[in-house]
Amino acid sequence: MRTITTVREMQMIALRLKREGKSIGFVPTMGYLHEGHLSLLKAARKENDVTVLSIFVNPLQFGPKEDLATYPRDFDRDSKLAEQEGNDFIFYPSAEEMYPGTLSVTARVQDRTDVLCGKSRPGHFDGVATVLTKLFNIVQPDKVYFGMKDAQQVAVVDGLVKDFNFYVEIVAIETVREADGLAKSSRNINLLPAERVEASALNQSLKIAESMIVEGEKDPREIIVQIREHIEKNTTGHIDYVEILSYPDLKGLDRLEGTIIIAIAVKFTKARLIDNAIITINKES
Amino acid sequence: MRTITTVREMQMIALRLKREGKSIGFVPTMGYLHEGHLSLLKAARKENDVTVLSIFVNPLQFGPKEDLATYPRDFDRDSKLAEQEGNDFIFYPSAEEMYPGTLSVTARVQDRTDVLCGKSRPGHFDGVATVLTKLFNIVQPDKVYFGMKDAQQVAVVDGLVKDFNFYVEIVAIETVREADGLAKSSRNINLLPAERVEASALNQSLKIAESMIVEGEKDPREIIVQIREHIEKNTTGHIDYVEILSYPDLKGLDRLEGTIIIAIAVKFTKARLIDNAIITINKES
Repeated sequence: MRTITTVREMQMIALRLKREGKSIGFVPTMGYLHEGHLSLLKAARKENDVTVLSIFVNPLQFGPKEDLATYPRDFDRDSKLAEQEGNDFIFYPSAEEMYPGTLSVTARVQDRTDVLCGKSRPGHFDGVATVLTKLFNIVQPDKVYFGMKDAQQVAVVDGLVKDFNFYVEIVAIETVREADGLAKSSRNINLLPAERVEASALNQSLKIAESMIVEGEKDPREIIVQIREHIEKNTTGHIDYVEILSYPDLKGLDRLEGTIIIAIAVKFTKARLIDNAIITINKES
Repeated sequence: MRTITTVREMQMIALRLKREGKSIGFVPTMGYLHEGHLSLLKAARKENDVTVLSIFVNPLQFGPKEDLATYPRDFDRDSKLAEQEGNDFIFYPSAEEMYPGTLSVTARVQDRTDVLCGKSRPGHFDGVATVLTKLFNIVQPDKVYFGMKDAQQVAVVDGLVKDFNFYVEIVAIETVREADGLAKSSRNINLLPAERVEASALNQSLKIAESMIVEGEKDPREIIVQIREHIEKNTTGHIDYVEILSYPDLKGLDRLEGTIIIAIAVKFTKARLIDNAIITINKES
């Protein structure tokens, strides 16, 4: 495994690989890898000739009051984990390397952002779309891997790839879960012991919603009521949102049809957890 | 020569050419080709294995009061001219093909646009940067050709390529001129006969500016005074702007140094003409 720190070297390697007819699987991350990231790397390893993992804490996607400075970093540990997964290249540029001067052009996301987590993070997805535009041009991937846990990010990237005509396939990998169904996250460690037990109610509430849909429920409001009730009854957390939207265009729905996302965010004492389920509703049902 | 009308086919052709190790020279245009365009195509033909000319009147770069509907189009003539230049592919998509739905992501140009022609065309360069981002991903060029007549566009594309890390070389081709120095333009035909004679004063005023700089003038205001005086004395046109800026970052200057652009725009009865000179000032002088 090689670690590349300059844009130019990474781009030269990628272009050489493309000329050799090799497929490139790309896993963009902000580092501090956990099992979720490793499941992306495993999939990339399986489906491509060469894998590239990027580790870059992108300042552009942090708001002025967010935790850019304290975002956890541990390159040595990340590097070992990536090597164990058989990864080929880590692209690990500095902020100065990625943003050497004031940007004169950025990507602006004008849709799919005023819902879910985007509502409380203005500009966040502009930063995500801008850095991914850069990374796609630098790494030249055939396939790029994202976790479905951050479903809104996958939806925004879907728009980015279509609207900018990037020739790259988005592979969305299912959320990795603990035995009790809790979605794996670096933030779970910040849950109090009692909260950790309660937190399984998030995934349970999504299962309840799925059952209601299977049984024919078409009214999103009915489902939202049941989800809220289950979380409120079974946790001490504070519900940030429970939303049901079309997927991937993230529009509000009066009636459930097509492919939808049920997404929830719950604040505990020191951790805000998110989870979601994507469901395709059979037209006949 | 082949004409391609779908994004998918053009992208497949470009990717195949890249895999075969062929270099692609790209000339993006809005059609209605004149000698300026053909000089770009000639240069592309000379420097690349394969040439692609795109003809696309991009709705995104026209303001609501601008002439999108009446913009001149003549595909048959363009096609013949391109073939005569030995061009390989014309990419000629419809607006629906390029913009099949509402865009969720666009490129935003936040610098180099509040000067020169950009001042009076808000959003114009966002549209240019968005369509070029798409076209670069579709056509996969090694080199892309622009005329220096539209120097602000070249400066914006320079920012786009750097900020989005496109692996493409921008080739800026010198403005093609009439015998009396007037920059060639489709709009020259709209000059009244007397205005056509006067119009050579634009290029003359740039020559006067160049002489002043060679002789050691360092104050942009002095040069602007002389340019204005020459145009006002020798034409019936109305000066839209005379600006001297750093190039390509298009910042105002108190003192002339480095590479600069002297740019002018003059309105005649039925035609607005632009011209410019790019000059690099020797530090020793």
